[in-house]
Amino acid sequence: MILSKQASNLLHRSWVIVLTLEFATSMWRITWCLLLLATTCWQRGYTKEGENPPSPGHVSVVIVGGTGDLAKKYLWQGFFHLYSTQVGKGYTFSFYGGGLSPDDKGTALLFEILKELKCPSELTAERCALVKEQFLRLSQYLQLKTVEDYEKLSQQIQQQLKQEGMVEAGRLFYMSVPAFAYADIAAKINSTCRPPAGTWLRVVLEKPFGHDFGSAQLLATQLASFLKEEEMFRIDHYLGKEVVSQILAFRKKNNNLLEPIWNKHHIERIEIVLKETLDCKGRIQFYDQYGVIRDVLQNHLTEVLTLLMMSVPANLSSSEEVLKNKLQVFSTLEHLESKSVVIGQYQSYTEEVQEELNKTKDYFSLTPTFAGVVIFADSPQYDGIPIFMTSGKMLDERVGYARILFKNDIFCVQDYDNVNCRPRQIVFYLGHGALEYPAILVSKNLFKPSLVNSGWKEVTEHKDVNVLGLPLSDYYIQTPVVPKEAYYELISKIFHGRKDSFISTENLLASWAFWTPLLDSLVRAYPRPYPGSVANGDLLNFELRGREAAFVNEAVVNVIQQGQDENFQVMQGKYRGVDMVSAWAKELVERLASDLQSAAEEAIRDEGQFHLALSGGSSPIALFLQLALHQYTFPWSHTHVWLADERCVPPTEAGSNFRTIHDQLLQHVRIPYFNIHPMPVLLNQRLCVEEDGGAILYENEINQLVNASSFHYILLGVGEDGHTASLFQDSKLDESGERLVTLTESPSKPHQRMSLTFTAINKARKVGVLLMGKRKHELVTQLSRIKGESAKYPITKVQPTNGNLIWYLDYDALLG
Amino acid sequence: MILSKQASNLLHRSWVIVLTLEFATSMWRITWCLLLLATTCWQRGYTKEGENPPSPGHVSVVIVGGTGDLAKKYLWQGFFHLYSTQVGKGYTFSFYGGGLSPDDKGTALLFEILKELKCPSELTAERCALVKEQFLRLSQYLQLKTVEDYEKLSQQIQQQLKQEGMVEAGRLFYMSVPAFAYADIAAKINSTCRPPAGTWLRVVLEKPFGHDFGSAQLLATQLASFLKEEEMFRIDHYLGKEVVSQILAFRKKNNNLLEPIWNKHHIERIEIVLKETLDCKGRIQFYDQYGVIRDVLQNHLTEVLTLLMMSVPANLSSSEEVLKNKLQVFSTLEHLESKSVVIGQYQSYTEEVQEELNKTKDYFSLTPTFAGVVIFADSPQYDGIPIFMTSGKMLDERVGYARILFKNDIFCVQDYDNVNCRPRQIVFYLGHGALEYPAILVSKNLFKPSLVNSGWKEVTEHKDVNVLGLPLSDYYIQTPVVPKEAYYELISKIFHGRKDSFISTENLLASWAFWTPLLDSLVRAYPRPYPGSVANGDLLNFELRGREAAFVNEAVVNVIQQGQDENFQVMQGKYRGVDMVSAWAKELVERLASDLQSAAEEAIRDEGQFHLALSGGSSPIALFLQLALHQYTFPWSHTHVWLADERCVPPTEAGSNFRTIHDQLLQHVRIPYFNIHPMPVLLNQRLCVEEDGGAILYENEINQLVNASSFHYILLGVGEDGHTASLFQDSKLDESGERLVTLTESPSKPHQRMSLTFTAINKARKVGVLLMGKRKHELVTQLSRIKGESAKYPITKVQPTNGNLIWYLDYDALLG
Repeated sequence: MILSKQASNLLHRSWVIVLTLEFATSMWRITWCLLLLATTCWQRGYTKEGENPPSPGHVSVVIVGGTGDLAKKYLWQGFFHLYSTQVGKGYTFSFYGGGLSPDDKGTALLFEILKELKCPSELTAERCALVKEQFLRLSQYLQLKTVEDYEKLSQQIQQQLKQEGMVEAGRLFYMSVPAFAYADIAAKINSTCRPPAGTWLRVVLEKPFGHDFGSAQLLATQLASFLKEEEMFRIDHYLGKEVVSQILAFRKKNNNLLEPIWNKHHIERIEIVLKETLDCKGRIQFYDQYGVIRDVLQNHLTEVLTLLMMSVPANLSSSEEVLKNKLQVFSTLEHLESKSVVIGQYQSYTEEVQEELNKTKDYFSLTPTFAGVVIFADSPQYDGIPIFMTSGKMLDERVGYARILFKNDIFCVQDYDNVNCRPRQIVFYLGHGALEYPAILVSKNLFKPSLVNSGWKEVTEHKDVNVLGLPLSDYYIQTPVVPKEAYYELISKIFHGRKDSFISTENLLASWAFWTPLLDSLVRAYPRPYPGSVANGDLLNFELRGREAAFVNEAVVNVIQQGQDENFQVMQGKYRGVDMVSAWAKELVERLASDLQSAAEEAIRDEGQFHLALSGGSSPIALFLQLALHQYTFPWSHTHVWLADERCVPPTEAGSNFRTIHDQLLQHVRIPYFNIHPMPVLLNQRLCVEEDGGAILYENEINQLVNASSFHYILLGVGEDGHTASLFQDSKLDESGERLVTLTESPSKPHQRMSLTFTAINKARKVGVLLMGKRKHELVTQLSRIKGESAKYPITKVQPTNGNLIWYLDYDALLG
Repeated sequence: MILSKQASNLLHRSWVIVLTLEFATSMWRITWCLLLLATTCWQRGYTKEGENPPSPGHVSVVIVGGTGDLAKKYLWQGFFHLYSTQVGKGYTFSFYGGGLSPDDKGTALLFEILKELKCPSELTAERCALVKEQFLRLSQYLQLKTVEDYEKLSQQIQQQLKQEGMVEAGRLFYMSVPAFAYADIAAKINSTCRPPAGTWLRVVLEKPFGHDFGSAQLLATQLASFLKEEEMFRIDHYLGKEVVSQILAFRKKNNNLLEPIWNKHHIERIEIVLKETLDCKGRIQFYDQYGVIRDVLQNHLTEVLTLLMMSVPANLSSSEEVLKNKLQVFSTLEHLESKSVVIGQYQSYTEEVQEELNKTKDYFSLTPTFAGVVIFADSPQYDGIPIFMTSGKMLDERVGYARILFKNDIFCVQDYDNVNCRPRQIVFYLGHGALEYPAILVSKNLFKPSLVNSGWKEVTEHKDVNVLGLPLSDYYIQTPVVPKEAYYELISKIFHGRKDSFISTENLLASWAFWTPLLDSLVRAYPRPYPGSVANGDLLNFELRGREAAFVNEAVVNVIQQGQDENFQVMQGKYRGVDMVSAWAKELVERLASDLQSAAEEAIRDEGQFHLALSGGSSPIALFLQLALHQYTFPWSHTHVWLADERCVPPTEAGSNFRTIHDQLLQHVRIPYFNIHPMPVLLNQRLCVEEDGGAILYENEINQLVNASSFHYILLGVGEDGHTASLFQDSKLDESGERLVTLTESPSKPHQRMSLTFTAINKARKVGVLLMGKRKHELVTQLSRIKGESAKYPITKVQPTNGNLIWYLDYDALLG
């Protein structure tokens, strides 16, 4: 009773009700009883008039899965910390650990956890003992299995509140259970355990929130039928990490200095890294279904990415604004595909899988334990900055950081050791590694940053370590005055109802929408095996090649291959009596692009201009991208782009050939506006009306700009029915006579077309016909049997009078 | 006679004629006479039938200024080297050293030089002695002062040829004299000393070739009146340096590996560097007129630049192709201005100047002895790659190199010391520095290069030095087997008539055209003083800021200032009853750009699109450039650009408003083709004909795309006569009524215009009026006195009905 008296003095006077419980072990009985003597002291907390303000209410905290690993490791500690900061400030609490075990067994388990709780360092030993004793009294194990269990819990809360005349503030359910149980538990809470109107319900969820976009959406829909969006708190504990939680605050606080350099003109690269030394032992059951991308990249590292890239909200604590700006980031991220990533798996993973999943010795899992991804954003601010995102198990070091490396714009004439000759960077260091503590580091050659807030301090003593290429003394360093645990931070935010650090449904789905296509493309991909730890050497180092990621230690070989024209696996021969080039699709497109450039250079040398007519269809897209993204030296400034044919749809619509050429090619290169010649299908607000004279207009434009109306190059495709440009079997083609442009009818929608005529095509200096894919094989075979023209196959009428015709057939089209 | 007998045996039989000459010092007489015993052995060389092929002829080499410094240091040695490789291979030679001294004095001087000649290392001592003896016999001093002297020389050559029955091959004049003497000497050669028809004349010139574009052109014109282009060999001895002379060969030999990476997508930066430790003592007379840019950058380093950047010619020894490709490089280099450069001057330079130029103690020269320049090329291949070019006297180290640093595309997960985690670069190392010998270095993480030619070898033993950030063992290194002197290389090329390593007139003028505007802009610029050698510390390190160069050690301060919006010296007030913003031009434009972006963001947030109408004129150009090059985050993809008015000229012509907007703005940003709306002034191949309905067409386009035909922003200027857009005093403006677009008449050319009407302008949500420059001050004053509308000043009719009008006046316009 002495203990309890001291406690009640400290915690202000309270009524004590002794509850007795049966315990399985007599050893604990007395201790537990003593501790429980004052269990319900909260019931009268702060009610004595004049002494304290009236309580803002009572909060019931329920940890579902309250004796599980996460609860044991972080959650009770987090709630204990919360309690220690809140005690004496108004609210009253009760804490329930729920589990599937019966009460007696669960109570013992819970006690084992609770007795290990540690006080925050700012508490004195005496105060700590008191608060801890108090917390233990307020904590209770309950079996939470059936809907009746939840109903019982609700009744217990209500009964206690009633007995003590307390007002309820809200109920906080923390789901520390496997994700498959979420919907069921949410249903039970919703049906039997909701607090009364006017009070709040907060349900905390831990990842995984689904396995891909579809499952995440399903789970979100299920949850939405039981819980409102504002009632759900999806935790990404990275957002509780001190440094991560201050990224936006840092950016805002130092906005004047950062804004001018926070863009593609100054940032060289961004790295978001989580390296782990552990393996997956004991977690394989979960891990093997998820792998590193789902486990770390899709959530933690992507959240860091959005915090780095989003517009800084005017109000940092406005969850709406934070969400809006995050979603904006997702909308600019370029699509990921299997070539955007390298994956690995540590070698002993197979054994672990065989053991933990009871598999045979020939079983091999494709789950990656390492991934390196290169991400790009298609935005004026970040366009072209590579974002290296990587994480792996069994690496050489435990460390997490996000690094913004700025471009080196300095030329050091002398004094190369000068700080200004070294890299300029900002590092958000999450902890571990060489530095060992969380910190924000700004290299001194950049600027001196302001402290993010008063809870942070500047570090001025520098131990002799090197952080990401710079000695520590080269940095301005700031770190939290008192280190705080991520779970405590988040629990505190949940308690205060601040949603800005949690994953909203929209945010979650946006992230899954970004990652799911990559994950789908990797289903059958083989991860590179790695031995683990320092033995990995440079095996996992990866690099950007164009827009693709690749392991480095094949680099030299590949660069050589890339450069050797003679290594193109290209076959040259004859087809329908004229030249043919054939190769696998990729090499074929490279060859065509290269031939086009030669033609362009020749024309520009001779005439100062290159007039190129392009077709629609899907085959040329690979060519457009090749030209836009790889053929850097193509002389666009002297090239005119024309259309070989067009569908009669507004040029801004997706079905427009011009739109495709625009989006896939023209937007990526610096071609003068005057050199772009879309077909005028839309005139007087109507499409391809004969009287509007669009065809004649285009013809006039050709006559005026193209020497002798003879294009330097016309690129054509062929439809499976043998049509080319928009010249179809039934088109009255020969009636065009000397006309260069005509309106035609397609058998497929949209029926109306505008097209160059055979007259125009056969005037060209060079005509390339591109055919790719197995679907074209039959046509290629048939055409090869026809000599000369055939009314059935319009393409056979392409016979340049003074020019060259050349066929580009990929092996699929040629060989089937 | 023993010596001469040995010599004649070795050099095949020859006739010996003894010439006697009077010497000033009796000491030398005997020696000299002995040496001259066989002076004319060439006269019968290889004429004995059957023993050797007939001589291809006789070559007379004349070094004008043959006892000067350059001749002493390099030229005689070079010609001796040439002779030693040619002797016994056909040609016969005589060598003349010409000077202003009388023959006796000059002969003594020449002997002093000749006796120090060294043989190429491949010759045995015996052979060396013989060849040297032979060379001395063939060499002679002549006074070359008057036109008669040259005539005499010519007669002497002819006489000797006649006496010996030799055929003349050609005459090589090497002008080792101050440049001011070139034209005079060329005139004398031309008038009296030309070899007969069918033989060649080669005249070698040493820099400086002028002081700027004008003087270089004048000199070139003068020379052209005496010499043909193919007769002139302008030497840049850098082109004779082994590594420089092999840049193209290296690029060609390794083209397969280099071509894919030799572009802006892979090259991070290029550095072209010549660091010297010496001061200018003894050369001030010359140096102070020229300075480091004229002395080193305009010629040597620019030549290296062109070799690095030019397209590799198909035929490396075709001087036409080399020239064409070099000129192509010059045509892409972006204009330099004073802000592209940093300059310095070592502190003791002033003293040296005062002493050598006999100046008083208060005299201070502005001649830079250090320069750092950042050059950009506007080409698809190199666009955006900074080229750091730098040279200086009194630096810490003597070294010359060109370095191509490639972008770091690697993410090193582990094993950071791995070679692949280090910089990738190619270094053309000219010599000295840590390496001490000339070499081409390719970092091993790039590729293994082929040897440039059989005269080069791979270096596999690596001394423990660091070259540009990498240990030597990280490089593949190739170096010439036998080091050769630059002058010898060039003399050999002149002898063989290979012009590809010399500076043609076109090349020279292109280089001066590039450098002269910068030099002009620096006439009154103060160089930063530096103490010299290691004491310079980081004082000369410089960096790129945007497109400007700046010394680094002011960087932090500037970054801070750049970021602080509140530092804009912007004044806000009222003008003509509405809002006015005023500032210095630069800040005003920044503010307007920032306001435009805010308006754009607001419009896009609300309506998804921003409709902006822009005016022509000169004031907006600064705004366009600000938007294009600094306002990185402007939402172009959702912005539509319209014209406020247009001149009735073809849109591709320079006078077109659209053309200006296109070149200064649209070409630099990624705006969809569909969002660009030039005024249709050119229809049916004619300009602004009422019947063609261009104004109505534009009006329809506005009505269709712009919500309520109300532009979000119209930017206007005002002419000195008060007109705005193309709405002039006499335009019948009010007759337009509801019309949005109309044809108008300007009092100045081109008279015909198309313009938005006041109706369209006054419907806008925001109208900005930009007025800059002192020329507008009077107008600004007048307008401030007028209340409401005035028929005299059309701008006064701009009164948005529901929108805001805001004036942007720079201090020049506002305050005069």
